[in-house]
Amino acid sequence: MDVNVGVIGYGYWGPNLVRNFAETEGAGALWCAESQPDRRALAQRRHPCATVVEDAQLIMEDPAVDAVVIATPVSTHFTLAEQALRNGKHVLISKPMAQTAAECQQLIDLAQQNDLVLMVDHTYIYTGAVRRIKELLTTAELGDLYYFDSVRVNLGLFQHDVDVIWDLAPHDLSILAHLVPDMPREIAATGADHTGSGHVDVAYLTLHYENSFLAHCHLNWLSPVKVRRVLVGGSRRMLVYDDMEPSEKVRVYDRGFQVTTREGMYNTLVDYRTGDMWAPKIETREALTLEVAHFIECVRFRKAPLSGGATGLAVVRLLEAASASLKAGGQRVAV
Amino acid sequence: MDVNVGVIGYGYWGPNLVRNFAETEGAGALWCAESQPDRRALAQRRHPCATVVEDAQLIMEDPAVDAVVIATPVSTHFTLAEQALRNGKHVLISKPMAQTAAECQQLIDLAQQNDLVLMVDHTYIYTGAVRRIKELLTTAELGDLYYFDSVRVNLGLFQHDVDVIWDLAPHDLSILAHLVPDMPREIAATGADHTGSGHVDVAYLTLHYENSFLAHCHLNWLSPVKVRRVLVGGSRRMLVYDDMEPSEKVRVYDRGFQVTTREGMYNTLVDYRTGDMWAPKIETREALTLEVAHFIECVRFRKAPLSGGATGLAVVRLLEAASASLKAGGQRVAV
Amino acid sequence: MDVNVGVIGYGYWGPNLVRNFAETEGAGALWCAESQPDRRALAQRRHPCATVVEDAQLIMEDPAVDAVVIATPVSTHFTLAEQALRNGKHVLISKPMAQTAAECQQLIDLAQQNDLVLMVDHTYIYTGAVRRIKELLTTAELGDLYYFDSVRVNLGLFQHDVDVIWDLAPHDLSILAHLVPDMPREIAATGADHTGSGHVDVAYLTLHYENSFLAHCHLNWLSPVKVRRVLVGGSRRMLVYDDMEPSEKVRVYDRGFQVTTREGMYNTLVDYRTGDMWAPKIETREALTLEVAHFIECVRFRKAPLSGGATGLAVVRLLEAASASLKAGGQRVAV
Amino acid sequence: MDVNVGVIGYGYWGPNLVRNFAETEGAGALWCAESQPDRRALAQRRHPCATVVEDAQLIMEDPAVDAVVIATPVSTHFTLAEQALRNGKHVLISKPMAQTAAECQQLIDLAQQNDLVLMVDHTYIYTGAVRRIKELLTTAELGDLYYFDSVRVNLGLFQHDVDVIWDLAPHDLSILAHLVPDMPREIAATGADHTGSGHVDVAYLTLHYENSFLAHCHLNWLSPVKVRRVLVGGSRRMLVYDDMEPSEKVRVYDRGFQVTTREGMYNTLVDYRTGDMWAPKIETREALTLEVAHFIECVRFRKAPLSGGATGLAVVRLLEAASASLKAGGQRVAV
Repeated sequence: MDVNVGVIGYGYWGPNLVRNFAETEGAGALWCAESQPDRRALAQRRHPCATVVEDAQLIMEDPAVDAVVIATPVSTHFTLAEQALRNGKHVLISKPMAQTAAECQQLIDLAQQNDLVLMVDHTYIYTGAVRRIKELLTTAELGDLYYFDSVRVNLGLFQHDVDVIWDLAPHDLSILAHLVPDMPREIAATGADHTGSGHVDVAYLTLHYENSFLAHCHLNWLSPVKVRRVLVGGSRRMLVYDDMEPSEKVRVYDRGFQVTTREGMYNTLVDYRTGDMWAPKIETREALTLEVAHFIECVRFRKAPLSGGATGLAVVRLLEAASASLKAGGQRVAV
Repeated sequence: MDVNVGVIGYGYWGPNLVRNFAETEGAGALWCAESQPDRRALAQRRHPCATVVEDAQLIMEDPAVDAVVIATPVSTHFTLAEQALRNGKHVLISKPMAQTAAECQQLIDLAQQNDLVLMVDHTYIYTGAVRRIKELLTTAELGDLYYFDSVRVNLGLFQHDVDVIWDLAPHDLSILAHLVPDMPREIAATGADHTGSGHVDVAYLTLHYENSFLAHCHLNWLSPVKVRRVLVGGSRRMLVYDDMEPSEKVRVYDRGFQVTTREGMYNTLVDYRTGDMWAPKIETREALTLEVAHFIECVRFRKAPLSGGATGLAVVRLLEAASASLKAGGQRVAV
Repeated sequence: MDVNVGVIGYGYWGPNLVRNFAETEGAGALWCAESQPDRRALAQRRHPCATVVEDAQLIMEDPAVDAVVIATPVSTHFTLAEQALRNGKHVLISKPMAQTAAECQQLIDLAQQNDLVLMVDHTYIYTGAVRRIKELLTTAELGDLYYFDSVRVNLGLFQHDVDVIWDLAPHDLSILAHLVPDMPREIAATGADHTGSGHVDVAYLTLHYENSFLAHCHLNWLSPVKVRRVLVGGSRRMLVYDDMEPSEKVRVYDRGFQVTTREGMYNTLVDYRTGDMWAPKIETREALTLEVAHFIECVRFRKAPLSGGATGLAVVRLLEAASASLKAGGQRVAV
Repeated sequence: MDVNVGVIGYGYWGPNLVRNFAETEGAGALWCAESQPDRRALAQRRHPCATVVEDAQLIMEDPAVDAVVIATPVSTHFTLAEQALRNGKHVLISKPMAQTAAECQQLIDLAQQNDLVLMVDHTYIYTGAVRRIKELLTTAELGDLYYFDSVRVNLGLFQHDVDVIWDLAPHDLSILAHLVPDMPREIAATGADHTGSGHVDVAYLTLHYENSFLAHCHLNWLSPVKVRRVLVGGSRRMLVYDDMEPSEKVRVYDRGFQVTTREGMYNTLVDYRTGDMWAPKIETREALTLEVAHFIECVRFRKAPLSGGATGLAVVRLLEAASASLKAGGQRVAV
């Protein structure tokens, strides 16, 4: 049976969700709730057969709605998701999942008790690029991992209810958590607020692990240029994932070094090795299309989603620790 | 009268110094000391008229030598510079100036007492790009400064006696100190050692100032790609300085934001402004050529160099604080 | 009153037309004709309120349809457009307008006799980039024009009924005709057929004008990389229009040369001048959105479209001459 | 025994030749002739042990000189080379070898009669990139070759005695001739003179072969940007050789198409195939260093150089035919 879906929020990201649900096989009737009249009119014009309403409660309470998709500001995620789950609806929540790890845990428990699907929209892990990188890591193409360095900067857009860390870092942290399942032990965050909004607009995160693997994220709303680049260093190979490249988003470099210790000498010798570069073919289908189809499939067959509640919780735990570190002036905070 | 110059060290950087002194007007006879026979042979072949010797002491003690240029490992800088100054010779030292701020101060005092020129080879501040950026800042083209974010990563080259911070950060810190004369109050450094050499090969520095200006450097010896990029954000404009671009190394973006507070409302409104991009013409002469000519001029006319002992000291103070923070697990350390 | 629109063809480009008409203010009820069942199903799913039919004649003969949009293979353009005009419908035709200049002229005459709007979908001239370049040329920012060099290459897509010139060159020729209103006097075309399809898949066009201005297009279906770049040289400035750049698609270079003749000397002296580069802000709205709104406006107020029949005819005349030159082994053919 | 070398001309390219001969093992004493006093002074300062003279005849007539290297304007190549060969000296000539094919043939004969090495400085074929591409073609990595498309454009530098074809095309034609040994049957050239110098400053060459392989060169002295890019299409793979890339100059794309003919149908079906991209490691040593060493080796052991007289002649034959085509308004001219 087709899954009837109600999307709450038709702002920045909502339109992409609605469009994909409208075109995905297995998705049935479509609802959309949006408080702003002009956005509502746009939704209705684009999707004349959808039921476009002002009040999200109409979706929450309509027994015909099987699944609720939450594309509203972060501060509303928990309340909406909780209500949807209590009303027996499957839930797909935009990132980040909620404002606290405790809230995330409550939602996970609630979904489990009611045998409902709870999924978080960590779109990036459904991209052809991240899936290809995951394969490379699974087959140990890179050897031991040394570091993960991501830069995600551009001009705007300010979210009014969160800072740049809560806005942008969920992307990098979800990619990182997907690629490197070990949780970091500590996180340090630093940043600055230049607009006087009370939220940092430039921030740096450092994630410390049990071993010498190091992860770092540069997040910035005030950059003149848009950069979306991740470097991953390994003992056998290294890679660059540049999401701004129109093609060849992932480049694998057969480069590395070898340490030799000369007998009787104090110094170690480090020799560098430079080889070919290789850009594997990447699937180019829209990630959200895959993700939405995956959600529908999980709902229909009660499967565990790739980006389920546990993933959403892991990301929020990191964000919470980052906020704590930020308040503590950049000190390392245990995750 | 021409200035006779003795260059100590013909390794990685020495050849560039020797070549420039050989061609600079006002530079006279040339000496070069190098311990490795093959490097010495190369120096002699390239500069058949130079006096190429094994032992640096021959330069130190030769009364015909007016100025000594030190292009040896960091650990030898202080001893060599001190001796040269005591012997009445002007000194140009490769970066970083010395291993401790105390040593730098001693050299500064010694030079002053003997009325000798003491200059540090912070080459970047003589590039057309950095000089152009300095002009832009001097005329407040960027408005209030928000942040300075630099990335300096590549594969190798390991310095055996220093870590990646002492090897690469002097470039960024000298550029930063040149552009933003205020000293930071605190610095935090974090990094990791993946080769087991005892030196970090990936590191991040964060520099905190009295106001909300924030500086950050990413330094990495294990990157598959070479990146040399600085972002500078300001209230009126922002710029990108990409040293890997063959031309248009500096791009100024007429982009920014405005904060408006709506009466009676809790939220502030942030509006972004996007305008033209502009790449000023940059002088393309080799920076080291300019710098060497400047050193010769300072020696001849007893001028204060643009990158004198004080600049070298400032950079070393930052490096020392960074090392202290690294040891303290990334805690902020007062500069 | 709203304009009711029937789109014929839901293949490669049709979906973009249908989507834009569906969302454009002033466009009313929507029809779509498509012969392939799976494409028809897709159209209906995306536009549940549109009347999706198999047979284009239903659109042609429905008196409720005010305007017909033709997005079918080139060989069908003339027949469909003629019928639509005879049935009193306004017409928007995909590029190229028709297979011969004679057909184009017939359509122009027919539209004029029946007081109907006839427009050709030369999308590029509605892009922010081309409109900005047009402004630069209108204000003589570039001085006298020297050359127009375009490269439009990628892998595929083969049109089965036309060669690479008729497939790709309409873009460049419409941009060129828009920027440089003078018609060339002669055109030379050369190319090669590597697939044995009877159509050239790699081709070069050279357009000769009355003065020394020179235009050239490289068209290629067999390129490993996608390039969409135009160089325009002028006596005062030069520009690069790179459509693959995510931003800064147009870059103006304050570069040129000056010729001075030294008295009593045979040789002239050519001095180069290199100045700043400047990337004007470009409007980023989708070109087709603007174009569709323009078509609706022309229909409602009987305005002459920016890319009317005359523009479509000019492009087809150039294509016809190019084909004649290609047959004649690359000889110049009068336009 | 070491080869004593006299370089004639210390203008744009001469300094690179002198520097390389000064450092190449097997090269002995060095002479340099240059008519301009300031250039002569520079040569002497850089190479204090070289014999720097005003009059080239001193080199021609000095029996100690074994080999003459000609780095003067094209119009002087033949006279100087002829004299050198008559005087029993080996010769290395800058590109293009001479002004006519007849002159080239005379020099070849003269060298043969006197058992002397005659080599042309087609530097590009000694680059790591071109050597790597040659290997790829030799092992048929690209399958059947479809086309060779080169773009070599920048701002300046005008050669006063030749046009842009004779200045820039020797590079592309020598690369092409090296990679594709078959000579083209016909060549067509078109161009324009915007400076009134009597020489074209923008030009396009098309080279026709016996089969459907097609070669094309875009040459331009009036481009705002510097482009040095070659596309090579093949039936199995395609490649891009971008000389402006700091690394990964050669990228091989596993892309192509397959033609299938459906029974009973008129149309052939063309399917595209997109696979990985691969950038083989390229040797980064300076090409001229290799070339100079090769010349010395050829002289010492009487070897036939990789870029001997025959190569120089082939390039000049193409240039002559291009000039004839240019005069004939772009008509194909037999080579």
